[in-house]
Order: sequence, then C-alpha cells, then structure tokens
Amino acid sequence: MNSFVYNIPVKVYFGENQLIHLGEELSKYGKRVLLTYGGGTIKKIGLYDKVIEEIEKAGLEVYELSGIEPNPRINSVREGAQLCKDKNIDVLLAVGGGSTIDATKWIAAGACVDFDPWDFLSKKVSVKKALPILTVLTLAATGSEMDNGGVISNPETKDKIGLGADPLLPKVSFLDPTYTYTVSQYQTACGAADMMSHIIEVYFNMDQDLYMLDTFMEGMMKTIIKYAPIAMKEPDNYEARANLMWTSSWAINGFINGGKQLAWSCHPMEHELSALYDITHGLGLAILTPRWLKYCLDETTVSKYVQFGMNVFNIDSKLDDMEIAKQAIHKLSDFLFNTLGLDNNFTKISIKETDFEIMAKKSCGGGVLEGFKPLQQSDIEEIFKMCL
Amino acid sequence: MNSFVYNIPVKVYFGENQLIHLGEELSKYGKRVLLTYGGGTIKKIGLYDKVIEEIEKAGLEVYELSGIEPNPRINSVREGAQLCKDKNIDVLLAVGGGSTIDATKWIAAGACVDFDPWDFLSKKVSVKKALPILTVLTLAATGSEMDNGGVISNPETKDKIGLGADPLLPKVSFLDPTYTYTVSQYQTACGAADMMSHIIEVYFNMDQDLYMLDTFMEGMMKTIIKYAPIAMKEPDNYEARANLMWTSSWAINGFINGGKQLAWSCHPMEHELSALYDITHGLGLAILTPRWLKYCLDETTVSKYVQFGMNVFNIDSKLDDMEIAKQAIHKLSDFLFNTLGLDNNFTKISIKETDFEIMAKKSCGGGVLEGFKPLQQSDIEEIFKMCL
Repeated sequence: MNSFVYNIPVKVYFGENQLIHLGEELSKYGKRVLLTYGGGTIKKIGLYDKVIEEIEKAGLEVYELSGIEPNPRINSVREGAQLCKDKNIDVLLAVGGGSTIDATKWIAAGACVDFDPWDFLSKKVSVKKALPILTVLTLAATGSEMDNGGVISNPETKDKIGLGADPLLPKVSFLDPTYTYTVSQYQTACGAADMMSHIIEVYFNMDQDLYMLDTFMEGMMKTIIKYAPIAMKEPDNYEARANLMWTSSWAINGFINGGKQLAWSCHPMEHELSALYDITHGLGLAILTPRWLKYCLDETTVSKYVQFGMNVFNIDSKLDDMEIAKQAIHKLSDFLFNTLGLDNNFTKISIKETDFEIMAKKSCGGGVLEGFKPLQQSDIEEIFKMCL
Repeated sequence: MNSFVYNIPVKVYFGENQLIHLGEELSKYGKRVLLTYGGGTIKKIGLYDKVIEEIEKAGLEVYELSGIEPNPRINSVREGAQLCKDKNIDVLLAVGGGSTIDATKWIAAGACVDFDPWDFLSKKVSVKKALPILTVLTLAATGSEMDNGGVISNPETKDKIGLGADPLLPKVSFLDPTYTYTVSQYQTACGAADMMSHIIEVYFNMDQDLYMLDTFMEGMMKTIIKYAPIAMKEPDNYEARANLMWTSSWAINGFINGGKQLAWSCHPMEHELSALYDITHGLGLAILTPRWLKYCLDETTVSKYVQFGMNVFNIDSKLDDMEIAKQAIHKLSDFLFNTLGLDNNFTKISIKETDFEIMAKKSCGGGVLEGFKPLQQSDIEEIFKMCL
C-alpha cells in the first residue's frame, strides 16, 4: 500500500441559488474578471445574466472570452492568455462544462508566462503559477471543477493532451444542479459514461489499496446507475441532477486514487478517437470500456471483476468467478448501451479501421500503455477491433 | 434537499514515513513551534524523537506543552494559550489523538485573544482567528485531524462542550498508520465505536439528502466492521490500521453531512456521561447507540433502519421492515459488544441511576435534544434506563 498526499482545497457551494456568493468570492481575488464560456447555452438558461448581475453587484470589472469549444482547442487558450495580459486580469471565472473549465485552467497558466501555452502540454513545462480560477458548473461529467487538470486539443498536430498541476486547482466552484436541467438526454448519458469511466479506470487496479476507497467507488457507480436514467427521463429532477453532479466531482478530484500507482487505459485510447474524429468524449469511453474490460479479464485479474459484479450489480456470489466477471461486463454494457442508449460500436459513429494503427500507436506513445494491464500497440488495435 | 458549502482545505500526508515533510510544512508558518502532546506514549513509540529531529533539521525553535488529558481540560488550554503568548509562538504542532488535537485547537484560538478561552465554549464567543495548527495523529477515532471542532471539559462546572470554527481547521495533518500500532485492543475498540457513532449520527436522519453520501457512509461502516477486529487481533496490521485511520477522518470532517440539518443525539448524551464519570468517549457511545436506535424505531423511521440493515449488514431484503430493523440493531450490538468486546451496559461501568436526571437534563439543555427524533429529558432518562 503506497503513501499519498491528499490536497483538494477547492471550496464548493453546492445547491440552488448559491450564486449569491459569487461576488463576495470573486472579490477576494481582485477587481478585473475574465468570464469564459462556450457556445451560448449559458445565455439561453439565464445563467449569463445572473452571473453578470452578481459580478456587477460586487462592483467588479468584467471582460469576456466566449466560444470555447467542446474538446477545447489551444487557440482559445492562446487567445484567453493574451486577453488576460492585455486587460490585466486578476481572476478567471469559467462558466460551463469541463471543456470551458479545462481551457480556462490553461489560460490562467498561460497568462503568467511569456511562452506559448501549448508548451505546457507538448513539452511538459511545469506550471509554477496561474491566475486564480473560479467556476460555475453546467455539466456533470469531467470533474474539472474540483481537480487540477485540463485536456486541450491541437488540431494542427492532431494532438489531445491532458495534464494537471496544483496551481490550476479552482479556488471556488459553484455547483447548482438546476443549471444542468437543460443538458440533453444524450449529453446526460455521455456525462454518466464519462463518470463511470473515471471510476472504473481507478477501481480496476491490482495494487492493494484502501478498501474504504473501493467502497466509495462502488457507491458512486451505484449512484450513477440509479440516477442517470432518472435525469434522462426527468431532466429537472433535482435529486437526480444533484447526485450526478456531486458524484462527477468526487469521481475524479483525486480522493479515490489513494496511493495507487495510477495509469489510465481507456482515457488515453479515447483521446485519440476524439482528437481524430471530434466525437463526444463520454461516448468514446462508453464504447471502449466494456471491450477493454473483456480484453483484460484473466485469472490474474478476475478477483477485481468479481468484487465489481457483486458490489455494484449484486451478482450472485455463489456463481463461478469467471461467470460473475462476464455477467458484470454484460451488465455494464447493458447500462451503457441500453439504459443510457449510447451507440454501441465504432461503425455507428463512422470510426474507420484504417485509422486504428495510428490511433493505437499514439495511445501508447509507441511503447506501452501502462494501466490495469500493460497494453502495447497491438493490444490496443485488438481492443479497437472489438469495438467495430 | 438543502444546499451546503464544502470547505475542507486540510492537506494530509497519509502513509509511512511521511514525517520527512514535517519540517518543510511547519516552516511555511513560522519559526517558533509549540509542540503539544499527552501522557508520553509518543515518547515510548519513538515518535517524539522523530518529531524533534525533523523540527531541528528544519532549524525551528521548539517549545513544549505535555500532559494534555484524555477528555482534555480547560486548564490545559489556558496554560497552552499563555505559553503561546509568552513564547511568541508562530505555529502549533499537536502530536497525539483527538484529545491533544482538540485542546490544541482551543489553545490556538486562546493565543489570539485577551479573554479566558473558556468563554469561546461557554459563552459561544466566535473565533475570528487562531494560530496555524499542524497535527500528527496517533489514534484513529475522533477525526479532529481533519475537522474544525474540539471538545473541552471543565471539571469545575462539570461541563463538556464541543464547538467548531473554520480558523481551527488544521493546515496539515500527518496520518501514519504505523503510529497507531501500539493502540491497545480496548482503545482500538473504543475508537471504532466512536467512528461508527459519528457516521450513525449523520446517517440516521429522515431529511432527504444525497444518496451518494449514504453509499459512502455505508462503505465506511463496512470498512470499520471489517477492519476493527483485525486491528484488535493484529495490532501491526498496516492494511487494517490504514483503513481505520482514513475512515476516522472522513467519518467526521463534514463531507458526509451534505445539506442535512444536523443535530446529533448520542454525542450530547455521552458528553454528559463522560463529563461526570470520565469514561472513554467511544465506550459511552457504544452503550448508548443501540438503545437510542431502538427507542427511535417506529413506522415513521423504519425505512432508514431497513436501508442500514440491508446495505451494511446484508440482511435479507425479503423480511418484514420491522424485522430487518430489529435485526440491524441486533447486529450492531453484536459488533460493539461481542466483536469489539466493549462493556454492554452502564452497570458494568458504575454509572448510577441517581445521576440520570441531571445528565438527561444537561443533554437537552433543559429543553429538547433535536436529532433523528426530538428527545425531551424524559426520553433521554428512558434511554439511560435501557442502558442499565
């Protein structure tokens, strides 16, 4: 069992109408605010007006960067970082989902340096400093509101790179489940698949770690399985949206990692899919995850599948271990493709076999993708084929 | 479902040999350190020497306050606060269990004011400021290492009062499970009972709150039930000590509360027992909790007992609700009194019926003890009688 450092100092206002505290929290960090957001959903749901009202009430100056893309691009980061320098910004306020928050994190870092912010990701230049970031979350999925990481795409190089650094941790995040009421059935499903994957990537690990954390992960998976279908059918069900929202944060803020030597598998593979095809991250993960689990199942790993099957899906413990494992994968697939209704293979979303080689190669950086089981390029290609 | 603010910025170094970071962390807060500890166990296990070595290596000046009592007294707090003023202390380092840490919190607050620190507790004077506190934990039980509260006894007034305030949150806590290897069987059992009670006080609540948090609480209770007996039999079992240690922190750092309107029941009752009899806190809780659960069980509350019985003790869901509830209380008693081996009634620990009236009156402040079910003085006396 490895040692670890737990350090998640993000303050969270959770629940309805918590935005009344936005002005007081922003004011702690300065006067000049850069508001960042995506395609305008926040205007449609009245959130933009509310945010502006609170900022103005606090007597702060606001500048804006809108149009941050899903799978956010490095050009938005460059533009935002330049804006921070030009306008002498004190604090960033990201209003949106994981894409907006991810981009804002790298804008906050880029604002403090003279080089191209892409260097942080491509050359792994360490982040010494970043402007303070506050967030208002509108999509329960990536957990970016409570973690220190962000993923950025570079269409020129066809790269999609995720990295983390403590200066990127948001200072304060506002999680109001009502701001997710307008998230579509499809995006709710993709968000649920994304959260499930965040947990599964950590849970499926043969390192001995704290059992207590395993029970938390099982609880979170049960929560997603219980509430994602409710949120899809009743988009304004507060209980469902609230459970999904708080689970999305805890699935990836680092708490469940404990001291595990982490090496994710499906995320690096999926990043190559969405870098090339610009598909929704959660959908790519949904298609990959059950195949990857099937590929990694053997006598040395089966015990983890048994624990998963019994504690998350209540599969009968009297069955043979391999049988429990297979039923567990089947139940997970059933949840992802039938309950959530996500497309269940690459063919349906036009991902072509001719790209498998290059995507597989990039996934493992031409070497080995360490993870639950180490995967070489050929293994990854095999998993991709299972997804056809 | 109520809104809430989540704010637990305590940094935790978890695992073996993490004390190598002690000097660097203390140095962030100043040069002059007051080391606080209890009866000398930390010398026996070599922890004192290790702590002094790390402090000296960092070039800091160290002062000491030893002899902090179990159920710490206000006089220790007064002495410590005065010492901080006399020696111009920058930062406090509490090395010990919940009692040492609790006392240190109020020392840290007392050091910043001119009045008697007992006023914070007796007159509810709000805490505006406190010296920074770091902790090294040696007993998994109270969770004080990661929360903002502390309980202090005043033998003159026979009061025992617990209060919390954010300035009392430790900045950094070191949780090394090996430092709990010498905790006796009995104290390990009392610690486990204390943790169970912290969770049960929150879990048994009819407020609708996040299901996700219920799953975490169930996971923590399962963790305690699994590992407390192991730690009692094999005191140097790292896995068991580590699970108990991290669970003890999360059972009471505020995370599981969500937006519940909290009002604890067994703790206020137990505080009157230990104020008058100086018994171990966890033992008092163990005796009270199953009786209190039995007393509160009726048609309006049974659903929570059913959830508890099924998810924590795997009681057959096909049984009648009341039957599941009764079996659940029985299984909890069996864990506390047979598995942990704690005394199962007041008679065994010489608590006398003649004191019930005054203890019950103090528990509810002469009015109503709000909680899972509101309890008046007569209810509490009834629960005390069930404990005979």
